Amino acid sequence: MSPPEVYYNHLTPQSFLDRNAAVFRNKPAVIYREKQWSYQEFAQRVKQLASALQGWGLKKGDRVAFLCPNIPQMIEAHFGVPLAGGILVAINIRLAPKDIRYILNDSGARLLFVDKELSNLVAPIRDKLETVEAIVNIIDEEAKVTGENLSDLDYEGFLATEASELLISPLEDENDLISINYTSGTSGKPKGVMYTHRGAYLNALGEALELGMDSRTVYLWTLPMFHCNGWCFTWGVIAVGGTHVCLRKFYPETVISLLMSEVITHFCGSPTILIMLVNDKAIKTLKLSHKLRVATAGAPPSPTIIQSMEELGIEITHVYGLTETYGPHSVCEWQAPWDDLPMDERAKLKARQGVPYIHAAEMRVVDENMNDIAADGMTMGEVVMRGNNVMKGYFNDVEGTKNAFRGGWFHSGDLAVVYPDGYIELRDRAKDIIISSGVNISTIEVERAIYKHPAVLEVAVIAIPDEKRGEVAKAFVTLKPEMVVSEKEVMSFCHQHLAGFKCPREVEFCELPKTATGKVQKFLLREKEWMGFEKRIH
Amino acid sequence: MSPPEVYYNHLTPQSFLDRNAAVFRNKPAVIYREKQWSYQEFAQRVKQLASALQGWGLKKGDRVAFLCPNIPQMIEAHFGVPLAGGILVAINIRLAPKDIRYILNDSGARLLFVDKELSNLVAPIRDKLETVEAIVNIIDEEAKVTGENLSDLDYEGFLATEASELLISPLEDENDLISINYTSGTSGKPKGVMYTHRGAYLNALGEALELGMDSRTVYLWTLPMFHCNGWCFTWGVIAVGGTHVCLRKFYPETVISLLMSEVITHFCGSPTILIMLVNDKAIKTLKLSHKLRVATAGAPPSPTIIQSMEELGIEITHVYGLTETYGPHSVCEWQAPWDDLPMDERAKLKARQGVPYIHAAEMRVVDENMNDIAADGMTMGEVVMRGNNVMKGYFNDVEGTKNAFRGGWFHSGDLAVVYPDGYIELRDRAKDIIISSGVNISTIEVERAIYKHPAVLEVAVIAIPDEKRGEVAKAFVTLKPEMVVSEKEVMSFCHQHLAGFKCPREVEFCELPKTATGKVQKFLLREKEWMGFEKRIH
Repeated sequence: MSPPEVYYNHLTPQSFLDRNAAVFRNKPAVIYREKQWSYQEFAQRVKQLASALQGWGLKKGDRVAFLCPNIPQMIEAHFGVPLAGGILVAINIRLAPKDIRYILNDSGARLLFVDKELSNLVAPIRDKLETVEAIVNIIDEEAKVTGENLSDLDYEGFLATEASELLISPLEDENDLISINYTSGTSGKPKGVMYTHRGAYLNALGEALELGMDSRTVYLWTLPMFHCNGWCFTWGVIAVGGTHVCLRKFYPETVISLLMSEVITHFCGSPTILIMLVNDKAIKTLKLSHKLRVATAGAPPSPTIIQSMEELGIEITHVYGLTETYGPHSVCEWQAPWDDLPMDERAKLKARQGVPYIHAAEMRVVDENMNDIAADGMTMGEVVMRGNNVMKGYFNDVEGTKNAFRGGWFHSGDLAVVYPDGYIELRDRAKDIIISSGVNISTIEVERAIYKHPAVLEVAVIAIPDEKRGEVAKAFVTLKPEMVVSEKEVMSFCHQHLAGFKCPREVEFCELPKTATGKVQKFLLREKEWMGFEKRIH
Repeated sequence: MSPPEVYYNHLTPQSFLDRNAAVFRNKPAVIYREKQWSYQEFAQRVKQLASALQGWGLKKGDRVAFLCPNIPQMIEAHFGVPLAGGILVAINIRLAPKDIRYILNDSGARLLFVDKELSNLVAPIRDKLETVEAIVNIIDEEAKVTGENLSDLDYEGFLATEASELLISPLEDENDLISINYTSGTSGKPKGVMYTHRGAYLNALGEALELGMDSRTVYLWTLPMFHCNGWCFTWGVIAVGGTHVCLRKFYPETVISLLMSEVITHFCGSPTILIMLVNDKAIKTLKLSHKLRVATAGAPPSPTIIQSMEELGIEITHVYGLTETYGPHSVCEWQAPWDDLPMDERAKLKARQGVPYIHAAEMRVVDENMNDIAADGMTMGEVVMRGNNVMKGYFNDVEGTKNAFRGGWFHSGDLAVVYPDGYIELRDRAKDIIISSGVNISTIEVERAIYKHPAVLEVAVIAIPDEKRGEVAKAFVTLKPEMVVSEKEVMSFCHQHLAGFKCPREVEFCELPKTATGKVQKFLLREKEWMGFEKRIH
């Protein structure tokens, strides 16, 4: 529908900022260490950025890349780039230069904004960038390392080039792109996941509803904003008139001290982040004087970590999704009768990935013929999704999109069971599942058993080759500091908690390789174990 | 956009029920006295209704009228009629038979559902209904009066005619109509205000966000559901997985006892409803053990009534809108720094109509050339609105729609000032304002002054003719029970609180005539006073 009618306006996160720049004009929109920007100031800077981009020559639909940590400029980009008619490409700052080059070229970004501390990621590839016409340095006083200047342009100087008036290019369609987010690319080349204005708007509201956010919300940026646009909280916090608290780098002790000095009401993070927090020495000093809600996803959290967090008085909301679903798509919606259950039972219920979000998401678990699997808590199927919080497709990849959307649903590649109450629980990535003598073993189930061991900080289980059974389980374990346990002890612990055929045949103690967002890179562990074998290398 | 894609689904309230019938299957969706229906049961009845309607022959876009109080069948209608592809026309049960006839004929309703107690409203006009092909009696055991059977069909019997399978007619466009709500028609014929699926969906989420609703919400039906579809709470409570508590008739003492026996978390009502509650004897027994939020609108609440409610521990959310804006369009968004102000100052701030809702509503106050008026708290202009929560137009009334939408905005006919902080405050309906010696007098301002008098229960101020000044104010006052005050005392009280020219020249003690939704019908008061004069009769 276009052009807008009296009774119709496009769904776009920009409307949240327009509204709250007027309503909460003097309230802090963004806080970063000692500095803060009111809603009015923030909106002004967004307008400056949009205007400067247009003055530079940005045209409707052009891609603008940002490579920076969770600093205020990144939030400005989430509004300023789309306001100028552009499409934001927020790049994972923990990627190697070659991956960054691939993303910049694949997205066809015309402009690249780089936090100066990260210039070493760009310097080696700058001559190989096919579409980037200009680089803008972002200089943050809080950076620990002084990187090199990649160009003469710096962010504040760029903002100062704003035109006297913003040449607003009105959104023509709410299904126009607002951003492209690249997958981590553990199985092949990174794919550019396309988000629309409509999808971003609805997901922002969905987060606000599911996490109970309102104008008193103070949101701490522990989750990278380059990851699914920070699960759309970049827009969602602004939607409710809340306050963003930026955080350049995640240090558990910094977070714990922030939780006590600022009135943080919400943050998000992978289970890894939660494990780091709970196991930090400083956690003993944590005293919460207010309600704190934490959304976790990225990998299935064990009941053990959920329970540890809740014992600290932190309310965990367990959500699940993928880059292709704007971050969270499902939530373990809490049922009031569960309030009275013992803590461990509650944690077990909450460790399930649950049901679709309020805002009309659709989710099923299906067999290979797209039939719903039995809701028996045992049968495994693939999680598929549909609706306003599924990506528009992969950028420049018609075949990839077609494949992901086969049968009219987005295929997550995640295997799950459905309980009789309709809640799903992930069992594995399709490629992670262990097939032992023809029987499926869920690596997540094995990991959960091992997490119960008090000495275990982290664990990852993978399939390794076995002559007789095809595959068996192997566990890679990181122990808590100053803890000592033998391989044998872990294995006998498993035998107490698992059926024999599910127990790992090997246990190895090591650090786990991880992606930027805290996901364990099982493919790296597998590569090592499967060297010389033909199957199972992803 | 149609047909739906993998990344797109139509915004429609039906998706809320589809989701929550699965998520909260055993939780009560609707409670009515001793009975309750779980989400699964409620969804089943909705499906039965839709299926029976289709079996009867209802086609896409056909209108279905309901004339009944706030009983469970009315909530079922809000989902079942649209699910069958129909458009709901919920009729004000306090209208006269001739108005009901007008609405039925104008909307072209093919089916009419009538609560049997209200059959006397339909019996006199049934031969004059031009389009109604069938009438279905709704029989409610709680009805005090046994009305006559208007046909052989009763609601439960009709539901039993459901087809074995629902012939779902998929929504073709989210801008298709979901309901038509007739205005009260105080100035001419009632107009059919068209609501869309998209608008209903977004407004339902908007209410949930602004009122902080979630799955623990228990909503009491003090506001008529026939009024703007109950400000979209009919859909909003189902959106969050909350519970509807039906109420056949509003008696203050019933409500007060319900507030204590059920865990009611939310209700809505006009200031008149609040005045009745606060002044009821039973209010002294009210002890709240939980948070109760009340949204009020329909007429500007005086600071006095806001303060009285908040002193009872009830959190008031002041909203404002019209039938043409799906009910509320603006909210007096609370600012945290106001928390610390004295109660009377907070009440004064909260008596303002505020700012647009989160969900991207747009609102301005303009002069006759559509320019924004000065935000000085003094200059008056007309409130105009735009966006997803403005009606699609008036049914069968292209001219009326064109006039209401002139300049690309919906014209509310309400006069307001804008404070320097951007919050609006209503001064009058355009037709209510008093023009005295060329100077505007806000009747609301005069009413507020009189409300401060401890003996006053209710007051309405209108313009009456005056030879010298053109118009002057007259106050109609209802006193609290057993209170006695003289006309003179009220007038001298006004002189203490208002500039001389604003004080009423006459005071009359009487009951105030009101619409079904508690709005004082000033036109009736004016008719009497202006008899024989040429202007000012609306």
